[in-house]
Amino acid sequence: MSAIDFYFEYGSTYTYLTVARIRALANLQGVKIAWKPFLLMPLLAEQGMIQGPFLPYPRKIDYMWRDLARRAAEHGIPYSKPSLYPPKETLTCARLGVLGAREGWCEQFTENVFALHWTENRIIGTDDNLYAALESIGQVPANAIERARSPENKEALKSQTEEARRLGLFGSPSFVAAGELFWGDDRLEQALAWAKLN
Amino acid sequence: MSAIDFYFEYGSTYTYLTVARIRALANLQGVKIAWKPFLLMPLLAEQGMIQGPFLPYPRKIDYMWRDLARRAAEHGIPYSKPSLYPPKETLTCARLGVLGAREGWCEQFTENVFALHWTENRIIGTDDNLYAALESIGQVPANAIERARSPENKEALKSQTEEARRLGLFGSPSFVAAGELFWGDDRLEQALAWAKLN
Repeated sequence: MSAIDFYFEYGSTYTYLTVARIRALANLQGVKIAWKPFLLMPLLAEQGMIQGPFLPYPRKIDYMWRDLARRAAEHGIPYSKPSLYPPKETLTCARLGVLGAREGWCEQFTENVFALHWTENRIIGTDDNLYAALESIGQVPANAIERARSPENKEALKSQTEEARRLGLFGSPSFVAAGELFWGDDRLEQALAWAKLN
Repeated sequence: MSAIDFYFEYGSTYTYLTVARIRALANLQGVKIAWKPFLLMPLLAEQGMIQGPFLPYPRKIDYMWRDLARRAAEHGIPYSKPSLYPPKETLTCARLGVLGAREGWCEQFTENVFALHWTENRIIGTDDNLYAALESIGQVPANAIERARSPENKEALKSQTEEARRLGLFGSPSFVAAGELFWGDDRLEQALAWAKLN
Protein backbone atom coordinates (compact mmCIF):
# COMPACT_ATOMS: atom_id res chain seq x y z
CA MET A 1 0.00 0.00 0.00
CA SER A 2 1.21 3.52 -0.80
CA ALA A 3 2.29 5.44 2.26
CA ILE A 4 3.23 8.90 3.46
CA ASP A 5 5.07 9.96 6.58
CA PHE A 6 3.29 13.10 7.74
CA TYR A 7 5.55 15.22 9.97
CA PHE A 8 3.86 18.07 11.76
CA GLU A 9 4.22 20.69 14.50
CA TYR A 10 1.16 21.54 16.62
CA GLY A 11 2.03 25.25 16.73
CA SER A 12 2.00 25.63 12.93
CA THR A 13 -0.77 27.57 11.26
CA TYR A 14 -0.98 26.03 7.77
CA THR A 15 -0.80 22.58 9.36
CA TYR A 16 -4.44 23.05 10.36
CA LEU A 17 -5.48 22.91 6.72
CA THR A 18 -3.67 19.61 6.26
CA VAL A 19 -4.94 18.08 9.49
CA ALA A 20 -8.47 18.97 8.41
CA ARG A 21 -7.99 17.46 4.93
CA ILE A 22 -5.55 14.58 4.98
CA ARG A 23 -7.71 11.78 6.32
CA ALA A 24 -10.41 12.06 3.66
CA LEU A 25 -7.95 12.62 0.80
CA ALA A 26 -5.73 9.71 1.84
CA ASN A 27 -8.72 7.38 2.26
CA LEU A 28 -10.01 8.33 -1.16
CA GLN A 29 -6.67 7.56 -2.74
CA GLY A 30 -5.80 4.52 -0.66
CA VAL A 31 -2.67 6.04 0.81
CA LYS A 32 -1.68 5.11 4.36
CA ILE A 33 -0.63 8.06 6.55
CA ALA A 34 1.85 7.71 9.42
CA TRP A 35 1.22 10.64 11.78
CA LYS A 36 4.56 11.92 13.09
CA PRO A 37 4.46 14.87 15.51
CA PHE A 38 7.82 16.57 16.02
CA LEU A 39 9.19 19.78 17.51
CA LEU A 40 9.86 22.25 14.71
CA MET A 41 11.25 25.12 16.78
CA PRO A 42 14.64 23.55 17.64
CA LEU A 43 15.17 22.75 13.95
CA LEU A 44 14.31 26.30 12.88
CA ALA A 45 16.60 27.71 15.56
CA GLU A 46 19.50 25.59 14.30
CA GLN A 47 18.91 26.94 10.81
CA GLY A 48 18.81 30.57 11.93
CA MET A 49 15.03 30.84 11.55
CA ILE A 50 14.56 31.29 15.26
CA GLN A 51 11.13 32.82 15.56
CA GLY A 52 9.60 30.80 12.79
CA PRO A 53 9.70 31.75 9.14
CA PHE A 54 6.97 34.37 9.29
CA LEU A 55 7.09 36.16 12.63
CA PRO A 56 9.81 38.70 11.81
CA TYR A 57 8.03 40.00 8.71
CA PRO A 58 4.79 41.84 9.49
CA ARG A 59 3.67 41.99 5.85
CA LYS A 60 4.09 38.26 5.50
CA ILE A 61 2.17 37.64 8.70
CA ASP A 62 -0.71 39.84 7.60
CA TYR A 63 -0.71 38.01 4.30
CA MET A 64 -0.58 34.62 6.02
CA TRP A 65 -3.78 35.28 7.97
CA ARG A 66 -5.62 36.40 4.87
CA ASP A 67 -4.27 33.50 2.85
CA LEU A 68 -5.22 30.99 5.56
CA ALA A 69 -8.79 32.26 5.67
CA ARG A 70 -9.09 32.14 1.87
CA ARG A 71 -7.59 28.64 1.63
CA ALA A 72 -9.88 27.36 4.37
CA ALA A 73 -12.90 28.82 2.56
CA GLU A 74 -11.75 27.30 -0.73
CA HIS A 75 -11.49 23.86 0.88
CA GLY A 76 -14.71 24.23 2.86
CA ILE A 77 -12.87 24.02 6.18
CA PRO A 78 -14.39 25.81 9.20
CA TYR A 79 -12.05 28.63 10.21
CA SER A 80 -11.96 31.31 12.84
CA LYS A 81 -8.74 33.17 13.61
CA PRO A 82 -7.58 32.27 17.13
CA SER A 83 -6.89 35.10 19.59
CA LEU A 84 -3.34 33.92 20.31
CA TYR A 85 -0.44 33.24 17.98
CA PRO A 86 1.88 31.53 18.34
CA PRO A 87 0.52 29.29 21.10
CA LYS A 88 2.54 29.49 24.32
CA GLU A 89 3.45 25.85 24.70
CA THR A 90 2.93 22.81 22.52
CA LEU A 91 5.35 20.39 24.23
CA THR A 92 2.74 18.45 26.17
CA CYS A 93 0.53 18.42 23.12
CA ALA A 94 3.36 16.99 21.00
CA ARG A 95 4.10 14.38 23.64
CA LEU A 96 0.43 13.40 23.62
CA GLY A 97 0.55 13.19 19.84
CA VAL A 98 3.48 10.81 19.98
CA LEU A 99 1.77 8.76 22.68
CA GLY A 100 -1.36 8.68 20.54
CA ALA A 101 0.63 7.42 17.56
CA ARG A 102 2.00 4.62 19.72
CA GLU A 103 -1.44 3.77 21.12
CA GLY A 104 -3.45 4.29 17.95
CA TRP A 105 -5.34 7.56 18.61
CA CYS A 106 -3.01 10.26 17.25
CA GLU A 107 -5.10 11.08 14.19
CA GLN A 108 -8.35 11.76 15.98
CA PHE A 109 -6.66 13.53 18.90
CA THR A 110 -4.78 15.80 16.49
CA GLU A 111 -7.87 16.59 14.46
CA ASN A 112 -9.59 17.54 17.70
CA VAL A 113 -6.89 19.80 19.16
CA PHE A 114 -6.56 21.65 15.85
CA ALA A 115 -10.32 21.99 15.40
CA LEU A 116 -10.76 23.32 18.96
CA HIS A 117 -8.01 25.89 18.33
CA TRP A 118 -9.13 26.96 14.86
CA THR A 119 -12.89 26.99 15.28
CA GLU A 120 -13.56 27.55 19.01
CA ASN A 121 -10.52 29.61 20.05
CA ARG A 122 -9.60 26.99 22.65
CA ILE A 123 -5.87 27.57 22.32
CA ILE A 124 -3.88 24.54 21.30
CA GLY A 125 -1.74 23.11 24.07
CA THR A 126 -3.72 24.65 26.95
CA ASP A 127 -5.33 22.35 29.52
CA ASP A 128 -8.75 23.39 28.26
CA ASN A 129 -7.85 22.33 24.74
CA LEU A 130 -6.04 19.10 25.63
CA TYR A 131 -8.63 17.90 28.14
CA ALA A 132 -11.50 18.43 25.72
CA ALA A 133 -9.66 16.70 22.89
CA LEU A 134 -8.69 13.73 25.03
CA GLU A 135 -12.13 13.33 26.57
CA SER A 136 -13.82 13.35 23.19
CA ILE A 137 -11.83 10.28 22.16
CA GLY A 138 -12.47 8.42 25.39
CA GLN A 139 -9.10 9.09 27.04
CA VAL A 140 -8.89 10.06 30.72
CA PRO A 141 -6.91 13.31 30.37
CA ALA A 142 -4.84 13.12 33.56
CA ASN A 143 -3.86 9.52 32.81
CA ALA A 144 -2.95 10.19 29.21
CA ILE A 145 -0.88 13.25 30.17
CA GLU A 146 0.93 11.18 32.79
CA ARG A 147 1.77 8.51 30.19
CA ALA A 148 2.82 11.26 27.77
CA ARG A 149 5.33 12.48 30.34
CA SER A 150 6.91 9.08 30.94
CA PRO A 151 10.66 8.98 30.24
CA GLU A 152 10.04 6.50 27.44
CA ASN A 153 7.49 8.71 25.70
CA LYS A 154 9.59 11.87 26.13
CA GLU A 155 12.38 9.96 24.44
CA ALA A 156 10.06 8.94 21.60
CA LEU A 157 9.31 12.61 20.80
CA LYS A 158 13.01 13.47 20.94
CA SER A 159 13.83 10.66 18.63
CA GLN A 160 11.10 11.63 16.16
CA THR A 161 12.41 15.21 16.18
CA GLU A 162 15.89 13.80 15.53
CA GLU A 163 14.45 11.87 12.58
CA ALA A 164 12.95 15.10 11.23
CA ARG A 165 16.36 16.78 11.58
CA ARG A 166 18.06 13.98 9.64
CA LEU A 167 15.46 14.32 6.88
CA GLY A 168 16.31 18.02 6.58
CA LEU A 169 12.84 19.26 7.52
CA PHE A 170 12.43 23.02 7.95
CA GLY A 171 8.67 23.47 8.12
CA SER A 172 5.28 21.98 8.88
CA PRO A 173 3.40 20.25 7.40
CA SER A 174 6.02 18.08 5.70
CA PHE A 175 5.35 14.89 3.79
CA VAL A 176 7.81 12.17 2.90
CA ALA A 177 6.62 9.89 0.11
CA ALA A 178 8.96 7.29 -1.39
CA GLY A 179 11.98 9.26 -0.17
CA GLU A 180 10.74 12.59 -1.57
CA LEU A 181 10.12 15.58 0.67
CA PHE A 182 7.10 17.81 0.11
CA TRP A 183 6.58 20.90 2.24
CA GLY A 184 3.38 22.82 2.83
CA ASP A 185 -0.33 22.14 2.78
CA ASP A 186 -0.40 23.19 -0.86
CA ARG A 187 1.82 20.21 -1.70
CA LEU A 188 -0.45 17.63 -0.05
CA GLU A 189 -2.12 16.55 -3.27
CA GLN A 190 1.25 16.26 -5.03
CA ALA A 191 2.66 14.15 -2.17
CA LEU A 192 -0.33 11.80 -2.37
CA ALA A 193 0.08 11.44 -6.12
CA TRP A 194 3.81 10.78 -5.63
CA ALA A 195 3.11 8.11 -3.02
CA LYS A 196 0.79 6.32 -5.44
CA LEU A 197 3.14 6.47 -8.44
CA ASN A 198 6.33 5.44 -6.63
CA MET B 1 -13.45 42.34 -18.15
CA SER B 2 -11.83 40.67 -15.15
CA ALA B 3 -8.27 41.76 -14.56
CA ILE B 4 -5.15 40.96 -12.59
CA ASP B 5 -2.11 43.09 -11.88
CA PHE B 6 0.81 40.72 -12.15
CA TYR B 7 3.85 42.04 -10.25
CA PHE B 8 7.09 40.19 -10.82
CA GLU B 9 10.86 40.28 -10.34
CA TYR B 10 13.07 38.89 -13.11
CA GLY B 11 15.52 37.33 -10.63
CA SER B 12 12.85 35.20 -8.95
CA THR B 13 12.86 31.43 -9.44
CA TYR B 14 9.22 30.46 -8.98
CA THR B 15 8.21 33.38 -11.19
CA TYR B 16 9.36 31.29 -14.15
CA LEU B 17 6.48 28.87 -13.57
CA THR B 18 3.99 31.73 -13.65
CA VAL B 19 5.51 33.42 -16.68
CA ALA B 20 5.29 30.10 -18.51
CA ARG B 21 1.66 29.55 -17.51
CA ILE B 22 -0.19 32.81 -17.09
CA ARG B 23 -0.91 33.74 -20.70
CA ALA B 24 -2.73 30.50 -21.56
CA LEU B 25 -4.60 30.33 -18.26
CA ALA B 26 -5.71 33.96 -18.43
CA ASN B 27 -6.83 33.63 -22.05
CA LEU B 28 -8.82 30.52 -21.20
CA GLN B 29 -10.59 32.31 -18.38
CA GLY B 30 -10.96 35.67 -20.07
CA VAL B 31 -8.91 37.54 -17.48
CA LYS B 32 -6.80 40.48 -18.60
CA ILE B 33 -3.25 40.54 -17.21
CA ALA B 34 -1.32 43.77 -16.63
CA TRP B 35 2.37 42.83 -16.59
CA LYS B 36 4.14 44.88 -13.91
CA PRO B 37 7.88 44.34 -13.48
CA PHE B 38 9.29 45.75 -10.25
CA LEU B 39 12.47 45.48 -8.18
CA LEU B 40 11.90 43.09 -5.31
CA MET B 41 15.30 43.35 -3.64
CA PRO B 42 14.90 46.86 -2.17
CA LEU B 43 11.55 45.80 -0.69
CA LEU B 44 13.02 42.65 0.85
CA ALA B 45 15.94 44.66 2.24
CA GLU B 46 13.57 47.11 3.92
CA GLN B 47 11.77 44.18 5.53
CA GLY B 48 14.95 42.57 6.81
CA MET B 49 14.91 39.80 4.20
CA ILE B 50 18.04 41.12 2.59
CA GLN B 51 19.27 38.17 0.57
CA GLY B 52 15.85 36.99 -0.47
CA PRO B 53 13.72 34.66 1.56
CA PHE B 54 15.60 31.46 0.68
CA LEU B 55 19.32 32.18 0.35
CA PRO B 56 20.25 32.03 4.04
CA TYR B 57 18.75 28.57 4.54
CA PRO B 58 20.57 25.80 2.68
CA ARG B 59 17.90 23.17 3.35
CA LYS B 60 15.24 25.45 1.95
CA ILE B 61 17.35 26.18 -1.13
CA ASP B 62 17.94 22.50 -1.79
CA TYR B 63 14.24 21.92 -1.40
CA MET B 64 13.38 24.85 -3.66
CA TRP B 65 15.35 23.39 -6.58
CA ARG B 66 13.71 20.00 -6.19
CA ASP B 67 10.28 21.55 -5.79
CA LEU B 68 10.77 23.76 -8.86
CA ALA B 69 11.74 20.78 -11.02
CA ARG B 70 8.75 18.77 -9.77
CA ARG B 71 6.31 21.64 -10.27
CA ALA B 72 7.63 22.29 -13.78
CA ALA B 73 7.22 18.60 -14.64
CA GLU B 74 3.71 18.57 -13.20
CA HIS B 75 2.73 21.55 -15.37
CA GLY B 76 4.55 20.26 -18.45
CA ILE B 77 6.93 23.23 -18.47
CA PRO B 78 10.43 22.73 -19.94
CA TYR B 79 12.95 23.09 -17.14
CA SER B 80 16.70 22.91 -16.78
CA LYS B 81 18.42 24.27 -13.70
CA PRO B 82 20.52 27.31 -14.66
CA SER B 83 24.20 27.33 -13.69
CA LEU B 84 23.93 30.65 -11.86
CA TYR B 85 21.64 31.72 -9.05
CA PRO B 86 20.80 34.39 -8.26
CA PRO B 87 21.48 36.23 -11.52
CA LYS B 88 24.04 39.03 -11.16
CA GLU B 89 21.98 41.92 -12.42
CA THR B 90 18.37 42.26 -13.47
CA LEU B 91 18.08 46.06 -13.51
CA THR B 92 18.38 46.51 -17.28
CA CYS B 93 16.06 43.57 -17.77
CA ALA B 94 13.47 45.14 -15.46
CA ARG B 95 13.79 48.47 -17.26
CA LEU B 96 13.23 46.68 -20.55
CA GLY B 97 10.19 44.96 -19.06
CA VAL B 98 8.72 48.31 -18.05
CA LEU B 99 9.50 49.76 -21.47
CA GLY B 100 7.87 46.73 -23.07
CA ALA B 101 4.75 47.23 -20.97
CA ARG B 102 4.57 50.84 -22.19
CA GLU B 103 5.17 49.83 -25.81
CA GLY B 104 3.10 46.63 -25.82
CA TRP B 105 5.73 43.86 -25.90
CA CYS B 106 6.40 43.10 -22.22
CA GLU B 107 4.61 39.75 -22.18
CA GLN B 108 6.49 38.18 -25.08
CA PHE B 109 9.83 39.68 -24.05
CA THR B 110 9.41 38.38 -20.52
CA GLU B 111 8.40 34.90 -21.68
CA ASN B 112 11.54 34.87 -23.82
CA VAL B 113 14.05 36.02 -21.19
CA PHE B 114 12.70 33.50 -18.69
CA ALA B 115 12.65 30.66 -21.23
CA LEU B 116 16.24 31.39 -22.32
CA HIS B 117 17.36 31.35 -18.68
CA TRP B 118 15.40 28.28 -17.60
CA THR B 119 15.81 26.05 -20.62
CA GLU B 120 19.05 27.16 -22.36
CA ASN B 121 21.10 28.44 -19.42
CA ARG B 122 21.40 31.86 -21.05
CA ILE B 123 21.45 33.75 -17.76
CA ILE B 124 18.67 36.27 -17.35
CA GLY B 125 19.86 39.87 -17.54
CA THR B 126 23.08 39.16 -19.45
CA ASP B 127 23.61 40.76 -22.85
CA ASP B 128 23.38 37.33 -24.46
CA ASN B 129 19.97 36.75 -22.89
CA LEU B 130 18.55 40.24 -23.48
CA TYR B 131 19.74 40.54 -27.08
CA ALA B 132 18.28 37.17 -28.06
CA ALA B 133 14.97 37.93 -26.36
CA LEU B 134 14.71 41.36 -27.96
CA GLU B 135 15.68 40.17 -31.44
CA SER B 136 13.13 37.38 -31.37
CA ILE B 137 10.33 39.91 -30.94
CA GLY B 138 11.64 42.21 -33.67
CA GLN B 139 13.26 44.82 -31.42
CA VAL B 140 16.69 46.24 -32.22
CA PRO B 141 18.47 45.42 -28.94
CA ALA B 142 20.76 48.48 -28.73
CA ASN B 143 17.86 50.81 -29.48
CA ALA B 144 15.52 49.18 -26.99
CA ILE B 145 18.17 49.23 -24.27
CA GLU B 146 18.80 52.92 -24.96
CA ARG B 147 15.08 53.68 -24.62
CA ALA B 148 14.98 51.53 -21.45
CA ARG B 149 17.69 53.74 -19.93
CA SER B 150 15.94 57.02 -20.66
CA PRO B 151 15.25 59.11 -17.55
CA GLU B 152 11.54 58.76 -18.16
CA ASN B 153 11.69 54.97 -18.31
CA LYS B 154 13.98 54.68 -15.28
CA GLU B 155 11.42 56.75 -13.42
CA ALA B 156 8.64 54.42 -14.58
CA LEU B 157 10.38 51.40 -13.01
CA LYS B 158 10.98 53.34 -9.79
CA SER B 159 7.39 54.34 -9.64
CA GLN B 160 6.17 50.79 -10.25
CA THR B 161 8.46 49.56 -7.45
CA GLU B 162 6.98 52.28 -5.24
CA GLU B 163 3.52 51.00 -6.14
CA ALA B 164 4.60 47.46 -5.13
CA ARG B 165 5.86 48.87 -1.81
CA ARG B 166 2.55 50.61 -1.14
CA LEU B 167 0.72 47.35 -1.86
CA GLY B 168 2.85 45.59 0.76
CA LEU B 169 4.43 43.12 -1.65
CA PHE B 170 7.17 40.89 -0.25
CA GLY B 171 7.66 38.30 -2.99
CA SER B 172 7.35 37.39 -6.64
CA PRO B 173 5.13 36.44 -8.37
CA SER B 174 2.40 38.52 -6.75
CA PHE B 175 -1.10 39.00 -8.09
CA VAL B 176 -3.57 41.72 -7.20
CA ALA B 177 -7.14 40.87 -8.14
CA ALA B 178 -10.00 43.13 -7.07
CA GLY B 179 -7.88 44.53 -4.25
CA GLU B 180 -6.79 41.10 -2.97
CA LEU B 181 -3.14 40.10 -2.84
CA PHE B 182 -2.08 36.59 -3.83
CA TRP B 183 1.55 35.52 -3.53
CA GLY B 184 3.28 32.65 -5.26
CA ASP B 185 2.89 30.64 -8.43
CA ASP B 186 0.75 28.15 -6.51
CA ARG B 187 -1.84 30.89 -5.95
CA LEU B 188 -2.18 31.78 -9.65
CA GLU B 189 -5.33 29.72 -10.18
CA GLN B 190 -6.91 31.15 -7.03
CA ALA B 191 -6.09 34.71 -8.15
CA LEU B 192 -7.70 34.08 -11.54
CA ALA B 193 -10.82 32.67 -9.89
CA TRP B 194 -10.93 35.67 -7.57
CA ALA B 195 -10.64 38.08 -10.49
CA LYS B 196 -13.59 36.44 -12.21
CA LEU B 197 -15.83 36.36 -9.15
CA ASN B 198 -15.18 39.89 -7.92
